[in-house]
Amino acid sequence: MNVLSNHLQTINALKQPTSMAWVEQALANLDTILLDHSHCECKAAGVALNYIFRYPSNTKMIRELTAIAREELEHFELVNQWLERRGIPLAPLPPPPYGAGLKAQVRPTEPDRFLDSMLVTGLIEARSHERLGLLATHCPEPELAKFYRSLMASEARHFGIYWVLADTYFDREIVRQRLEELAIVESELLATLYSEPRIHS
Amino acid sequence: MNVLSNHLQTINALKQPTSMAWVEQALANLDTILLDHSHCECKAAGVALNYIFRYPSNTKMIRELTAIAREELEHFELVNQWLERRGIPLAPLPPPPYGAGLKAQVRPTEPDRFLDSMLVTGLIEARSHERLGLLATHCPEPELAKFYRSLMASEARHFGIYWVLADTYFDREIVRQRLEELAIVESELLATLYSEPRIHS
Repeated sequence: MNVLSNHLQTINALKQPTSMAWVEQALANLDTILLDHSHCECKAAGVALNYIFRYPSNTKMIRELTAIAREELEHFELVNQWLERRGIPLAPLPPPPYGAGLKAQVRPTEPDRFLDSMLVTGLIEARSHERLGLLATHCPEPELAKFYRSLMASEARHFGIYWVLADTYFDREIVRQRLEELAIVESELLATLYSEPRIHS
Repeated sequence: MNVLSNHLQTINALKQPTSMAWVEQALANLDTILLDHSHCECKAAGVALNYIFRYPSNTKMIRELTAIAREELEHFELVNQWLERRGIPLAPLPPPPYGAGLKAQVRPTEPDRFLDSMLVTGLIEARSHERLGLLATHCPEPELAKFYRSLMASEARHFGIYWVLADTYFDREIVRQRLEELAIVESELLATLYSEPRIHS
């Protein structure tokens, strides 16, 4: 799959596009967005690692998620270098309600839990991909815009990997239906702009 | 610091050398040792990531531990390739009491918690370094012995990094004394060989 078809498939998974209100909020708060982005990359690595601990016999999943975790940590380093360059100290940042809202959708019993976990994490990657794309397009600082563009391809690939992992173990129609349900919730969670600027506000 | 001085510093931190009984147990159970090693690498990455989440403002620590986590994940991939080559399926494996025994030594209140966490994790890296060295020396399979040798340098470096992080924020005499106390416990935990073959049995 090339970058363009990755991009289209990823964007298609999302029910509603991000509003321009988010873009304006993000551009007015680029430093906070960068700091939140740093947290997002580290959390994404942590999520991949948690799945590896939770499913210690799933060779295919472990191989894919090890690669994802390594890549997220590389991005975490790169974002932290941007923070350093701009003189923004690393600091905690309360997350928006988005992540917890999606996590609440994961059914507690296996094998539903596996399916929902892969799809929810895939949706977060798809949304990150879409929003990094918006930052790449609208960010007035050319170097930073270029950086966002450089991260986009892997976020799209990550969505694809989580989707394929779901598809490997479940009937395609079940995956499609559940993705549809979760994607509706995902867009609803972002329908009202969160007051604090975040990647997923 | 070169590899040799790394090696000596690391080995000096340990109160008691590993017994030949462990070497014999490990060599008689190389497949299980490889599987446990896979878990150790992944857990080591998880531990580094947990410290990053716990101390989100500590720039120096975060920079160092991001590099460690990336390296542990790379080793995790390499060990998993060895497992695949030998036809050993990934599977859960109950840990030996070593890790929990050391974790119990970490005092719950900051800043003691930080100091103890860095030193305990450093000691685990030092012991891993020593035992991978023993496997490199005694393993009868030349390719596998070479693999163990290739991992040794970074385990020694990891011990050094955790030690330096402790040393950055605490008086050197306090670090030395606490390392001494924890190293005694570490050796005591390994004084009786655990019945199941593990990297830290």
